[in-house]
Amino acid sequence: MIGLEDIMTLDDLDFSIETLSKCRIPSPMTGVPFVSQKDHVLYHSNFRDIQPFLDARREPPHFEMAGPREKIYFDPSKLKCGIVTCGGLCPGQNDVIRGIVMSLFYHYGVKTVFGYRFGYEGLSYKYGHTPLELDPDVVDDIHKWGGTILGSSRGPQDVSEMVDTLERMNVGLLFTIGGDGTLKGAQAIAGEIARRGVNIGVVGIPKTIDNDISFVGKSFGFETAVSESRTAIYGAHTEALGARNGVGLVKLMGRCSGFIAAYASLANNDVNFCLVPEVPFSLEAFLEALQKRLDARGHAVIVVGEGAGQDLMKRPLEKDASGNIKLGDVGIFLKGQIKSYFDKIGGEVNLKYIDPSYIIRSVPANPSDSAFCLVLGHDAVHAGMTGRTNMLVGHWNYQFTHVPIPLAVSKRKQIDPHSRLWSNVLSSTGQPKDLQ
Amino acid sequence: MIGLEDIMTLDDLDFSIETLSKCRIPSPMTGVPFVSQKDHVLYHSNFRDIQPFLDARREPPHFEMAGPREKIYFDPSKLKCGIVTCGGLCPGQNDVIRGIVMSLFYHYGVKTVFGYRFGYEGLSYKYGHTPLELDPDVVDDIHKWGGTILGSSRGPQDVSEMVDTLERMNVGLLFTIGGDGTLKGAQAIAGEIARRGVNIGVVGIPKTIDNDISFVGKSFGFETAVSESRTAIYGAHTEALGARNGVGLVKLMGRCSGFIAAYASLANNDVNFCLVPEVPFSLEAFLEALQKRLDARGHAVIVVGEGAGQDLMKRPLEKDASGNIKLGDVGIFLKGQIKSYFDKIGGEVNLKYIDPSYIIRSVPANPSDSAFCLVLGHDAVHAGMTGRTNMLVGHWNYQFTHVPIPLAVSKRKQIDPHSRLWSNVLSSTGQPKDLQ
Amino acid sequence: MIGLEDIMTLDDLDFSIETLSKCRIPSPMTGVPFVSQKDHVLYHSNFRDIQPFLDARREPPHFEMAGPREKIYFDPSKLKCGIVTCGGLCPGQNDVIRGIVMSLFYHYGVKTVFGYRFGYEGLSYKYGHTPLELDPDVVDDIHKWGGTILGSSRGPQDVSEMVDTLERMNVGLLFTIGGDGTLKGAQAIAGEIARRGVNIGVVGIPKTIDNDISFVGKSFGFETAVSESRTAIYGAHTEALGARNGVGLVKLMGRCSGFIAAYASLANNDVNFCLVPEVPFSLEAFLEALQKRLDARGHAVIVVGEGAGQDLMKRPLEKDASGNIKLGDVGIFLKGQIKSYFDKIGGEVNLKYIDPSYIIRSVPANPSDSAFCLVLGHDAVHAGMTGRTNMLVGHWNYQFTHVPIPLAVSKRKQIDPHSRLWSNVLSSTGQPKDLQ
Amino acid sequence: MIGLEDIMTLDDLDFSIETLSKCRIPSPMTGVPFVSQKDHVLYHSNFRDIQPFLDARREPPHFEMAGPREKIYFDPSKLKCGIVTCGGLCPGQNDVIRGIVMSLFYHYGVKTVFGYRFGYEGLSYKYGHTPLELDPDVVDDIHKWGGTILGSSRGPQDVSEMVDTLERMNVGLLFTIGGDGTLKGAQAIAGEIARRGVNIGVVGIPKTIDNDISFVGKSFGFETAVSESRTAIYGAHTEALGARNGVGLVKLMGRCSGFIAAYASLANNDVNFCLVPEVPFSLEAFLEALQKRLDARGHAVIVVGEGAGQDLMKRPLEKDASGNIKLGDVGIFLKGQIKSYFDKIGGEVNLKYIDPSYIIRSVPANPSDSAFCLVLGHDAVHAGMTGRTNMLVGHWNYQFTHVPIPLAVSKRKQIDPHSRLWSNVLSSTGQPKDLQ
Repeated sequence: MIGLEDIMTLDDLDFSIETLSKCRIPSPMTGVPFVSQKDHVLYHSNFRDIQPFLDARREPPHFEMAGPREKIYFDPSKLKCGIVTCGGLCPGQNDVIRGIVMSLFYHYGVKTVFGYRFGYEGLSYKYGHTPLELDPDVVDDIHKWGGTILGSSRGPQDVSEMVDTLERMNVGLLFTIGGDGTLKGAQAIAGEIARRGVNIGVVGIPKTIDNDISFVGKSFGFETAVSESRTAIYGAHTEALGARNGVGLVKLMGRCSGFIAAYASLANNDVNFCLVPEVPFSLEAFLEALQKRLDARGHAVIVVGEGAGQDLMKRPLEKDASGNIKLGDVGIFLKGQIKSYFDKIGGEVNLKYIDPSYIIRSVPANPSDSAFCLVLGHDAVHAGMTGRTNMLVGHWNYQFTHVPIPLAVSKRKQIDPHSRLWSNVLSSTGQPKDLQ
Repeated sequence: MIGLEDIMTLDDLDFSIETLSKCRIPSPMTGVPFVSQKDHVLYHSNFRDIQPFLDARREPPHFEMAGPREKIYFDPSKLKCGIVTCGGLCPGQNDVIRGIVMSLFYHYGVKTVFGYRFGYEGLSYKYGHTPLELDPDVVDDIHKWGGTILGSSRGPQDVSEMVDTLERMNVGLLFTIGGDGTLKGAQAIAGEIARRGVNIGVVGIPKTIDNDISFVGKSFGFETAVSESRTAIYGAHTEALGARNGVGLVKLMGRCSGFIAAYASLANNDVNFCLVPEVPFSLEAFLEALQKRLDARGHAVIVVGEGAGQDLMKRPLEKDASGNIKLGDVGIFLKGQIKSYFDKIGGEVNLKYIDPSYIIRSVPANPSDSAFCLVLGHDAVHAGMTGRTNMLVGHWNYQFTHVPIPLAVSKRKQIDPHSRLWSNVLSSTGQPKDLQ
Repeated sequence: MIGLEDIMTLDDLDFSIETLSKCRIPSPMTGVPFVSQKDHVLYHSNFRDIQPFLDARREPPHFEMAGPREKIYFDPSKLKCGIVTCGGLCPGQNDVIRGIVMSLFYHYGVKTVFGYRFGYEGLSYKYGHTPLELDPDVVDDIHKWGGTILGSSRGPQDVSEMVDTLERMNVGLLFTIGGDGTLKGAQAIAGEIARRGVNIGVVGIPKTIDNDISFVGKSFGFETAVSESRTAIYGAHTEALGARNGVGLVKLMGRCSGFIAAYASLANNDVNFCLVPEVPFSLEAFLEALQKRLDARGHAVIVVGEGAGQDLMKRPLEKDASGNIKLGDVGIFLKGQIKSYFDKIGGEVNLKYIDPSYIIRSVPANPSDSAFCLVLGHDAVHAGMTGRTNMLVGHWNYQFTHVPIPLAVSKRKQIDPHSRLWSNVLSSTGQPKDLQ
Repeated sequence: MIGLEDIMTLDDLDFSIETLSKCRIPSPMTGVPFVSQKDHVLYHSNFRDIQPFLDARREPPHFEMAGPREKIYFDPSKLKCGIVTCGGLCPGQNDVIRGIVMSLFYHYGVKTVFGYRFGYEGLSYKYGHTPLELDPDVVDDIHKWGGTILGSSRGPQDVSEMVDTLERMNVGLLFTIGGDGTLKGAQAIAGEIARRGVNIGVVGIPKTIDNDISFVGKSFGFETAVSESRTAIYGAHTEALGARNGVGLVKLMGRCSGFIAAYASLANNDVNFCLVPEVPFSLEAFLEALQKRLDARGHAVIVVGEGAGQDLMKRPLEKDASGNIKLGDVGIFLKGQIKSYFDKIGGEVNLKYIDPSYIIRSVPANPSDSAFCLVLGHDAVHAGMTGRTNMLVGHWNYQFTHVPIPLAVSKRKQIDPHSRLWSNVLSSTGQPKDLQ
């Protein structure tokens, strides 16, 4: 198992060293400051965390910095590339596709880019999907649309078949835009490529609306998703104010990680309770706190991440095509529990439940995410052109970074209940620290 | 039962004649063109419908035109008014409240306006709600908020108690903002007032997000609700395009009348099927048409009004506090039926269900509705100041009108399947005319 | 000169009678209620205006109702059509183009539709623009964009050349989307066609963001433009509140007709002064009223239509390519006048000037306009297929109508200072009725 | 002059040491993780920059981390606080005011918070402004509005008078929300307080829509301003596409620092030229590049920061009340230059100029800024309660920090033309690196 300490020794991982020595082609880019091998982004930003390394005279952990390099590995005039988008929709997918195509075409002069349809299905024989041929004209306006022009699908495909497709179509560089499962797929593809000893790079762009990929500070589309939750929370607050003992309940995405719910609670300070998967609560404590709030103020707004409170519902275990556990609907569950509780104690409650569901993930990227996705797409190309493989482009301390895929998929990023983030959520909602 | 022919004889109804002769106080408004007793808005706009009246030398049916009158009934310096909002939220409620307060204060010099809390509850003893005192400072910015600053509730209260409250607080004019049930309540209050022989006017402002009140061409908030559905339908379309055989299903409000669904389908021409309560369909015909669409185009978007297809679900009858029948969830029902159908025929379908629910009714009024509500509020005051009672302010052929409440509540407005509106929906979606 | 009375005798105008008798082909549309020759939309909606006609036993004035007819003139299998967009941008142009293409293709089976580039230039030889070939795939998503995919230009082109192009390309039906100048161009083209005795129809779709075309109650894009002004007025109000004696001044479009300014003032009730071209004012009266407002409330918001107050600026006369008089910048002018006035009287004023300019016309249509444009495009096709020519599709009393172009261009529609609209603006802003 | 090296020795600055030893009151906050004196945010995030410090065995530069401390200096039960907002409007001002009031009230139990009106004027005798009394009810909804409920003004006031006011009103802690000039004012106030030897803290919250305050990575409202530019750039692009040789020109805020223009160009990748104050250009080079672009693609979009190209306009020097140099209008200037250039070469150009001006700064904070402002307000209170003074709350590497005001005002933050940011802008617009 790969852990935090491994990012200290990034340079020893195959993906960089092996190819770096082979980067002999001068980059066709001109007039840009190239990133050198000395540019690394520190993992820690708190001096306290770095002190032990200083004391021990050891290098503190750091990531390679992303960006254009002076020498590249692939000959752009001969290179063919592929792009694939997998998993659920996420704002900014089209921006990333566009950023990749524009950079390949204008920065490097790569002319052939295949857009594989419907996720990893598009790399498999049996579905018969024909790839789109992507160029600047095709992608010119796609960043103004939600979703992905390539389509998507869930679940793995036969790795050997997929590498066959890449070899057959003479693809030297594959960009995979997707989440945890997609990255594991990319890792498997890179492994099969290594076994075959062919020269194909695989570069991941982490897509997770839940912002739950480790060693990636911020993933694209997350901020847009948080922004979009504003309408739902506004509605919940308005409904709560519009009735005696009004309660507005909003369910937001977040299977294992409650970042959307947490940031949405900070961004919309009408929220009185924020429930996330990482911080367990008991029904008793929560319902009593809600009753107390209603007694004091006459209305309440609750935001719940979809993965929260799963332990409270007794349900059989089911999985979807991506292998994700099918969650119980905590929104419907809480709605029922709140109603029965107030029925039981003879109180009144006017509860309105809002589940914006796919609305918050199918919108176009907001301006901030658009800028983010553009540079992300460019940096994925810069990384790929140097022959880096089995890695993804992340973002850390305001810098774009290179992260080995095995590291990123080693565990899931979650809210630390002892972090400043959660502390800020508690300070902002005013909810009791402990709802157990 | 009161019907269409009654609006021809509006002038014979008690509400106007009786008080008109008593309007002896000159309006304090200056510099505005007053509406005269000769201004009436024609009911028909198609010459064909008016021809028979011409032939018979009879007056064609028409409404009183709303607006300020030269002479008024109430002495503004002594008048106290009340406002109450009932039923579900609707965009523009605060705009109407503000329009009423501003007009009472600035146009007529009325200084005392009570805002009764939480619907008809606020007029009843037993809830102990204290009314807000409304003036221009209090309402200055409220039109920028969704919901109602007064709060709302469902269901009737004791009529006698409510009239007691009005008498006790010396209120001469009550404005009720609400839907069918609220208008029936207003009618009952006006009846009790008549029985007691006191001088209190009751003026209704029809609030129905479903746009389903008869003899009212357009009700406030409706256009905002249609506008807000754009995000949900955009999401459904994006999701449908993002997967093989993608289906986006959106449920919109519309208990008995599918106007929101119909206009949303015209306003978002990605919709392929629009299902409304007024046009029955069979599951077989609908599912086959859906399959045909998927075979031809690979994706589909369906919009369903919440009251559609109720006959297809076998459910016991339940009612809410307003006496409305509790509807089955046609969205969840269709989602299940579509999935089983494609399972059965061995086809694939990737269905994403979006229910924006309260989101579309809790937003602030859009600019068009804001302008509409402002004039509506003013015209309600103009009507009330002349002593008109048991009537509401409607809108017909781009003009604001006076409509007797008994006429407006006599039946529910619905989409006529033979109308140009429904014909336009069919032409726009391309769905089969007959899904039975 | 053609005037109001002519619409009473619409049926005598060449454009309808001549072709109606020639409509022998059954419409391929099925399952829609056809409009009959008896369906006419009344010009008046106030009973008072119609009374004299009744008394005189004359038909009151009315328009033909738009919509699909049972019999058509052109054989869809042989028909080629053209579309051209002229003049300034307006929200909804792409919606109308799309509505026309979809209706031609799906309702009638017309397969060839040329999209002429850059206005009437595209119909002229000398520019060498190649027309786009339009079909459902090309126009599928264009309604989500502002502007026009065809491009536009100002000014007339040689009429004979343009008809040559139509003849050479075998176009039987031309749709012109544009304003006053464009409609006059369409009239000239129709005249030349008549002179040549060829069978080509010319159908106009009135495009005027200022809503200033006569006998057209509401033109597409107008409501969107009014909506978009909300951000600018919000900003002006916020800036005005944020400083001592803060004044927010917003200039909105409206060359000769102040409808945008008037409706924007109703839709954003923070406006304290609305100045429009139709209602002259003197600087003295306006500045004194402004000072009075500032003394009383400490801030003020002013909305001015671009054509207002032109008489107050002494400027030489210039014209643009469309022959429109170049207006002086009344916003900059007022800004200067207000500053000097307060300087002179020793008062303080913090004025912030906002000119949203092209922002409000380059946005996509809002949902309400989208629905409007869709049906408008369909109805233009329905009219054209019956052989109607030299006419446009208008909207009156909530119905789509046929209007002879000579009638529509006979004069410009303006705000009547004695109308309920202007009265409502005065009541809402609270500004003095007379600023002269 | 204070420079970068000073932040290494933060602890030696009076503001921290002196008071830290006096923090003897336990914080009333419970259940939050307190920030310790060991938590410091590293100034550098690139390992390369930190290497020399490691080699020299010196501490790398760092900021104090912001957040609640275990021990505080002021006794909340006795403390009165003041808030003042100065300079131009900025999205999020009300969020920050609200965050401060909520934290003082709910986290610490401080009951008296004065909101001084209209900037430093409110602290001066001669204007006679009465401060607002702020509490949770007053500020509950203000974060949903643009601007500042306190009002603002430009320019300094007599320092002695302002400290008199604080002493007279027994204010122990003053929060100043403003830019460079405001911070210098805060520094002067803190200096006078020190001279008088009284116990009053002054905590700054940097407000700069231009994001140009040194040692502050991101200032509130900046992201909202960038977001709001989308509508203007969309309009410019739409207009450019809608005409032959169409050029859309947008002027954005940015007096000395072009961050808004740069990020807006990344966020809206239709921009072809981004001109900022930090990167000089010659008219010749720019106009030739524009001509080349038009020849190749037929349209172009230009974004210019308001401070760009000032050297190209020959103008006399003027200053505003804040002492800022009055800039020439580079938008109008470029518009003229572009037109004459194409006139001269006999080319055609259809230029549309859009200046969104105050629109982008008067809107409410977007969700991301709302979350940012909330925590910023809380952290300003946490800092103030510990007795820190003459400092501001900044943001660096995703952490909130403490920055001495003298350091922050020592120079202005600008775009480094050799940075990755500018390199990304060049890569994204495709404009020539060198326009001189």
